[in-house]
Amino acid sequence: MEARITLLPGDGIGPEIVEQAKRVLDTIAQKYDHQFETPSCPMGGNAIDEFGDPLPAETLETCKASDAILLGAVGGPKWDDPSAKTRPEAGLLKIRKELGLFANLRPIKPYSELLDASPLKREIIEGTDILFFRELTGGIYFGESGRMEHPDGEKAFSVMTYTTKEIARIVRLAAEAARNRGGKLTSVDKANVLEVSRLWRQVAADVVKNEFPDLEYDVVLVDAMAMHLISRPSDFDVVVTGNMFGDILTDEGSMLPGSLGLLPSASLGSDGPGLYEPIHGSAPDIAGKGIANPLATILATAMLFRHSLNLETEATAIEEAVARVVAAGHRTADIAAGGKSISTTEMGDCVIQELS
Amino acid sequence: MEARITLLPGDGIGPEIVEQAKRVLDTIAQKYDHQFETPSCPMGGNAIDEFGDPLPAETLETCKASDAILLGAVGGPKWDDPSAKTRPEAGLLKIRKELGLFANLRPIKPYSELLDASPLKREIIEGTDILFFRELTGGIYFGESGRMEHPDGEKAFSVMTYTTKEIARIVRLAAEAARNRGGKLTSVDKANVLEVSRLWRQVAADVVKNEFPDLEYDVVLVDAMAMHLISRPSDFDVVVTGNMFGDILTDEGSMLPGSLGLLPSASLGSDGPGLYEPIHGSAPDIAGKGIANPLATILATAMLFRHSLNLETEATAIEEAVARVVAAGHRTADIAAGGKSISTTEMGDCVIQELS
Ligand SMILES: CC(C)[C@H](C(=O)O)[C@@H](O)C(=O)O
Ligand SMILES: CC(C)[C@H](C(=O)O)[C@@H](O)C(=O)O
Repeated sequence: MEARITLLPGDGIGPEIVEQAKRVLDTIAQKYDHQFETPSCPMGGNAIDEFGDPLPAETLETCKASDAILLGAVGGPKWDDPSAKTRPEAGLLKIRKELGLFANLRPIKPYSELLDASPLKREIIEGTDILFFRELTGGIYFGESGRMEHPDGEKAFSVMTYTTKEIARIVRLAAEAARNRGGKLTSVDKANVLEVSRLWRQVAADVVKNEFPDLEYDVVLVDAMAMHLISRPSDFDVVVTGNMFGDILTDEGSMLPGSLGLLPSASLGSDGPGLYEPIHGSAPDIAGKGIANPLATILATAMLFRHSLNLETEATAIEEAVARVVAAGHRTADIAAGGKSISTTEMGDCVIQELS
Repeated sequence: MEARITLLPGDGIGPEIVEQAKRVLDTIAQKYDHQFETPSCPMGGNAIDEFGDPLPAETLETCKASDAILLGAVGGPKWDDPSAKTRPEAGLLKIRKELGLFANLRPIKPYSELLDASPLKREIIEGTDILFFRELTGGIYFGESGRMEHPDGEKAFSVMTYTTKEIARIVRLAAEAARNRGGKLTSVDKANVLEVSRLWRQVAADVVKNEFPDLEYDVVLVDAMAMHLISRPSDFDVVVTGNMFGDILTDEGSMLPGSLGLLPSASLGSDGPGLYEPIHGSAPDIAGKGIANPLATILATAMLFRHSLNLETEATAIEEAVARVVAAGHRTADIAAGGKSISTTEMGDCVIQELS
């Protein structure tokens, strides 16, 4: 097949890890006889430096005209000044909104060889296999906000809002995934306090009852979910929630396997290109040292093949190659537990060798 | 001293655990020669059943005319119907607002004898000693909210809002506590996305810079904090945050010690009575069986003596008695790890014996 996969290397370790993922793309192209065009565009802090805009119009246009997008990571202390006119995060929020990427998928599944790297006890984390669906283009992230004078100084506000349609489409996507996995769906809200959560709970229940009566369905309050994720993570299958709650819970969840460097994520819309990235950040402290773990980004390309290009064989090939590399004991510093470690490029080599 | 301590036993195991705390109050009164008046009032589900109101006017009046309030727990499946006219939680939110209890304090500190009950590995949880300050009468809990017709079905909204004054007073309280503890304060927000968090960050920084320049001060994003709490909880001292983020993070934090049944909390205003309660819920599944752990409620009375009655000696006496009881190996079922366990009343006996 022919496909255009836009690369957004970003900041910090972004370029290093995307470089390895690009090598994996090339290997897959060769092996399975695909033609991938892979333009690379500025985004994030580097784009602010060069164009004064974290998401230049040309980058956005290229992304829109793609089949899929692979992002490294954006941000860093250099662009962290809160009084700055614009910041890397603005680029991230804008690309999500512009491309309608309303569903952020984050699988949380530990590698058995790395179980000891988890901060949780083995008996707690063992068997965990969660797929999070976080709503990504609504909620308090995109509601009205502002400031005003107030007798008590200033007053600031940010509005959390959801419509029936926004809730239904993400719940539907999550429910479909649950049907193809363990058959269990958990919706997380704060319906005992928030009106917007009460609508969420009601719409979610309707969608499940009418369209997915076969699923085991449960609702959990966000505070309780923050507890359950630590005390009994293996009880969950697919978890769906709003933008803000999802931001917090998926980051909490990302700690469980003890191997952040291996967790990918996908952001999908109803049509158009999906965006794929590692869960971890731009790690400015180790940027340029050639020691970053490229596996999460490589696993993000597997998700890209699966969800945007419908190439399941290629996706599985990558995931199995990574699994074999990890099983064989190859480790970058972040997962080496102080033991012998290899470089970013060497880790790329390992995966490519397994693929060939 | 003379003091009026209003008891709100509540629902589920509430009455059983408050009964033991009341025995501790009586023991302290006798030993240190205090006169405590302890009226008991309906609140929560039982108050809905009896008066159709989770916080009857008379209960509120009695609370207002008290020096402190001791709450068991409210809620249960019986009152969980989302379409019900009123729910136990409404009583909780109302009493917080009516009494101006803007600061919720939650200490998270594992007992060394119970470290193995933590879902976290020993090397991660060891040394953890966090004091959370959650803002409790503002934020999205009390902002405007509603629903409206919308082309996409219904649209619901809930407004998160904070004023300079609301932020400054909780940060000030947290900073004072930090000064008397490890000297370290962490403020948690989502300033990279939310306008209301940007005001929070700005006001917090001003308060610390102008009034607490001696503190080690840090800001952390709420999603990152959800990660750090699991991966390096012992790095934190005092943590201050808004109502919603605090709800999630303190519940996450409450899982760390592996002994929810031992964690108390205090809700304080600028004057007037404080409200003290265990962190755990009403546990309807074990209500009436006489096996609930009364220690969190007993430790809540210690906080009550310290913060509302300024009786530090009495507070410490209770905390040390509980510590000795735990060290001696006495366990209710929730912390017995399948081993020998004692009843709610027997646990009360143990503490009282240590106090006498
Ligand atoms: C950088 C930030 C705007 C972003 C978010 O909050 O969505 C990040 O935390 C994430 O989860 O992708
Ligand atoms: C019961 C509920 C309204 C309450 C809250 O969200 O504040 C509870 O979760 C808490 O933390 O005390």
